[in-house]
Amino acid sequence: MDVVSTITAIRDKRRGIMGSVGFIPTMGALHDGHLALVREAKRNDTVVIVSIFVNQPQFDSQQDFARYPRDLKRDLELLEREKIDFVFVPPCEEIYPAGFNTWVEVKQISKELEGRARPGHFCGVATIVTKLFNIIQPTRAYFGQKDAQQVLVISKMVTDLNIDVEIIVVPTLREADGLAMSSRNLLLNARERQAASILYRALTVARQMHNRGTVDSAEIRNAMISCLKQEPLVTIEYVEITTADTLDELPIIDRTALVSLAVRIGSVRLIDNILLYPPK
Amino acid sequence: MDVVSTITAIRDKRRGIMGSVGFIPTMGALHDGHLALVREAKRNDTVVIVSIFVNQPQFDSQQDFARYPRDLKRDLELLEREKIDFVFVPPCEEIYPAGFNTWVEVKQISKELEGRARPGHFCGVATIVTKLFNIIQPTRAYFGQKDAQQVLVISKMVTDLNIDVEIIVVPTLREADGLAMSSRNLLLNARERQAASILYRALTVARQMHNRGTVDSAEIRNAMISCLKQEPLVTIEYVEITTADTLDELPIIDRTALVSLAVRIGSVRLIDNILLYPPK
Repeated sequence: MDVVSTITAIRDKRRGIMGSVGFIPTMGALHDGHLALVREAKRNDTVVIVSIFVNQPQFDSQQDFARYPRDLKRDLELLEREKIDFVFVPPCEEIYPAGFNTWVEVKQISKELEGRARPGHFCGVATIVTKLFNIIQPTRAYFGQKDAQQVLVISKMVTDLNIDVEIIVVPTLREADGLAMSSRNLLLNARERQAASILYRALTVARQMHNRGTVDSAEIRNAMISCLKQEPLVTIEYVEITTADTLDELPIIDRTALVSLAVRIGSVRLIDNILLYPPK
Repeated sequence: MDVVSTITAIRDKRRGIMGSVGFIPTMGALHDGHLALVREAKRNDTVVIVSIFVNQPQFDSQQDFARYPRDLKRDLELLEREKIDFVFVPPCEEIYPAGFNTWVEVKQISKELEGRARPGHFCGVATIVTKLFNIIQPTRAYFGQKDAQQVLVISKMVTDLNIDVEIIVVPTLREADGLAMSSRNLLLNARERQAASILYRALTVARQMHNRGTVDSAEIRNAMISCLKQEPLVTIEYVEITTADTLDELPIIDRTALVSLAVRIGSVRLIDNILLYPPK
């Protein structure tokens, strides 16, 4: 496994690759969710490149950026075990040299859901992904469904800007109690970690109601909120039922719906989502 | 010469090319300035691709967009004569399908000079150039120094977003009386066309003063304004002396300076510029 830290070096490696390149951009603190992306890439592509870069512009605050979990040594061990070909670990100044000031913005869908709570977040995401795609020039890039809106923003960007990369979305990996795998889970203490299983229980309430024929979003949303309120450590940020592509409000579930939520547990912000499909 | 109008078709052609690709994005109404770019590309690159697309988002108004000169038949004849390999002439909906909403913004330098008069202009330029680069995947792209700020914005974008394209800047071509070649010159009537030579005369005043040792920008600027005011058909929009890279104000010319101006003659807006180099 080749670990490189400069743009020049990874480009050199890239030029030497025959066949398809699978790319997984990460912010490190790797978990099984990331490894599911890696394994999907290993199945599809000749060569797999993983990047590890904690991208400051997509954080809401210096504090959130500073405390984001980092463990490069462990990340590299995990990737070594997966027989990854190249890991790109650039320092911040390699990606954002002094005077950097060009930004990619996917309007509209960046403003919904997470965008309301985190203005500028998806501009940071779209910009780093554009840069990494231009540096790596992958055939395919892999993202987790857990960050549903991120997947939509990146897919829209790829379509709108004619970026020649195929986006592969991999289903959310969950812990035994249903909690979606996320690097931020590491920030939870034991009691908070226990409480965090309520997110998936609330999503399961939605799935069960929908399976039993409920199509009224308000009714499902209220039941989810009641479920979440059973957990005193949880502060709800949003619970939304929207169209799965444009994130428009969907009062009646007559097509594929994205059920998404964001909560705070202590000082940790967690998100999760499921898709509901219309009855056939 | 192969004229193609869909993204799929030009990508197919692109995949078949061995060797370097030179790309000249244009809005048509080709003149010798464009042909100088084409000839430079022919000298450097194995295959040359020209695009013709009047890019609505970079226009300030529907009216300006509507009256922009168009003559596809003549453009194709000129390119045929230059033995161009491929011409990409997409219809508007191929580039901006319904729902398109992703934009590239080079902040700061997009706000100076032209950006003040034409908010959104360079966002339109940066976005279309990003799209065309992603579609064509050229080795080199060619732009005219006549649009000095456009060159800066695109070069900054290429650097900031790690776009793998070399930008080649070709000196401004001028008519016998010094008027910079521009598609918009076609919109001038005979009397206006005559008046338009004042732009280059004003720039020549700057060059001569600088050659004689004047380094005070205000002094040069005043002399240029006096020169322009001799022409009653001219309305001055701006006359600026800035750094050539960041477009910061440059009160004393102690490094390379960009002397740029924008005027209206009748209803036609014209721009021009020269570079002044510091004494050795």
